[in-house]
Amino acid sequence: MSLKYIDNARKILCIGRNYAAHIKELNNTAPAQPFFFLKPSSSILKPNDGPFLVPKGVVVHHEVELAFTLNRTLKDLSPDFSAEEALECIEGYALSIDMTARNVQDEAKKKGLPWSIGKGFDTFLPLSNFIPREKIPDPYNAELVLKINGEVKQQDKTDLMIFPIHKILSHMSAIMTLEKGDLILTGTPKGVGPIVPGDKIEAYIKVDGEIVEEIKFDAEQKPGPYEYKEI
Amino acid sequence: MSLKYIDNARKILCIGRNYAAHIKELNNTAPAQPFFFLKPSSSILKPNDGPFLVPKGVVVHHEVELAFTLNRTLKDLSPDFSAEEALECIEGYALSIDMTARNVQDEAKKKGLPWSIGKGFDTFLPLSNFIPREKIPDPYNAELVLKINGEVKQQDKTDLMIFPIHKILSHMSAIMTLEKGDLILTGTPKGVGPIVPGDKIEAYIKVDGEIVEEIKFDAEQKPGPYEYKEI
Ligand SMILES: [Mg+2]
Ligand SMILES: [Mg+2]
Ligand SMILES: [Mg+2]
Repeated sequence: MSLKYIDNARKILCIGRNYAAHIKELNNTAPAQPFFFLKPSSSILKPNDGPFLVPKGVVVHHEVELAFTLNRTLKDLSPDFSAEEALECIEGYALSIDMTARNVQDEAKKKGLPWSIGKGFDTFLPLSNFIPREKIPDPYNAELVLKINGEVKQQDKTDLMIFPIHKILSHMSAIMTLEKGDLILTGTPKGVGPIVPGDKIEAYIKVDGEIVEEIKFDAEQKPGPYEYKEI
Repeated sequence: MSLKYIDNARKILCIGRNYAAHIKELNNTAPAQPFFFLKPSSSILKPNDGPFLVPKGVVVHHEVELAFTLNRTLKDLSPDFSAEEALECIEGYALSIDMTARNVQDEAKKKGLPWSIGKGFDTFLPLSNFIPREKIPDPYNAELVLKINGEVKQQDKTDLMIFPIHKILSHMSAIMTLEKGDLILTGTPKGVGPIVPGDKIEAYIKVDGEIVEEIKFDAEQKPGPYEYKEI
């Protein structure tokens, strides 16, 4: 069961700009509504399946995030869908890193192009083992930590989310049917920054100071013909 | 088998701006490299599963396209991957319509946001039955036709593609692993335009004047709470 949730996810949806201090650090504007994008299943890096691959010419940023999976199909939820109702729909959680090719994304933003390439390279979605929901009784009382070479880069509580899970679900489900098993990432706190080949990455999710799950891997240069150049 | 290809597609990838006259009609610039985006599996509208749903406040445009599925995994193909090698990797074809919420997409382009919402509403990917590859011996000798209420809106040959299938595959596979079953849409010719509730849509793919497959459905207003408003 601890990795089965990965095969069960028909789609992977990620909320953008859901922590105020992260919006500020990238000079972005805060969204009036949650916006989201898709990551391909081929970008998943399972635990102990490392290394994480940095494509040539790409500035990769780490974004540590709380993810959850659904235990039912959700469609056209009303805007007053409640926090309590939302928790009932969660099958469990995962620790995740929404790796982002920042220079590829910046070019896409400037040119009005999709984000799929900048978010979708192979290994750009490191995931932890499945976390049963009892282990995170309150998804806003969890701490996300990411370290590079032993140095803390991101460390914040999930109570800093701008759009809570029930708002995310009512918004998304009115646009596209959310299916049992779908995996949803809830946004990253401040502290995003580059990962380069040779780096050792560790991420943790903690509840009341205790580690619930962790991810560990090394970064290497991606082999193959790809090299990013702005054109 | 005729619909099994739909369940086998782990991801759905769509090329943008692959026909010169379509790039011109939307005042876009031609890409130096193919760019692509993902559509969610929840957006698929199977044959005879209509209606197609127009979200409130949304200007939906039809984009009729040739789609194909892969019979193997492709990763890090070199830029000189050949047309002949590409044809070997095709399991079969489908007629598809890449429905696009044009005003949602225009706002996303202006603000540098992802395209996932504008491309991903439920029913935004009408698909035909599977087309065995023998029925389209040359993917550049096919004709795409789309009619609304009996009037022809799009009608062009696939030989007008800017990036042929082998270039699409070498580019995509160097970014993300393409898996057996993945569904790839090759872009739309000119003539895109709005669909409104009440419209009757028909699309055809023809080879040497003979219909190979067709899609037919009606458009209705999407129920539920969603209404698009630019903010
Ligand atoms: Mg996108
Ligand atoms: Mg993120
Ligand atoms: Mg298209």
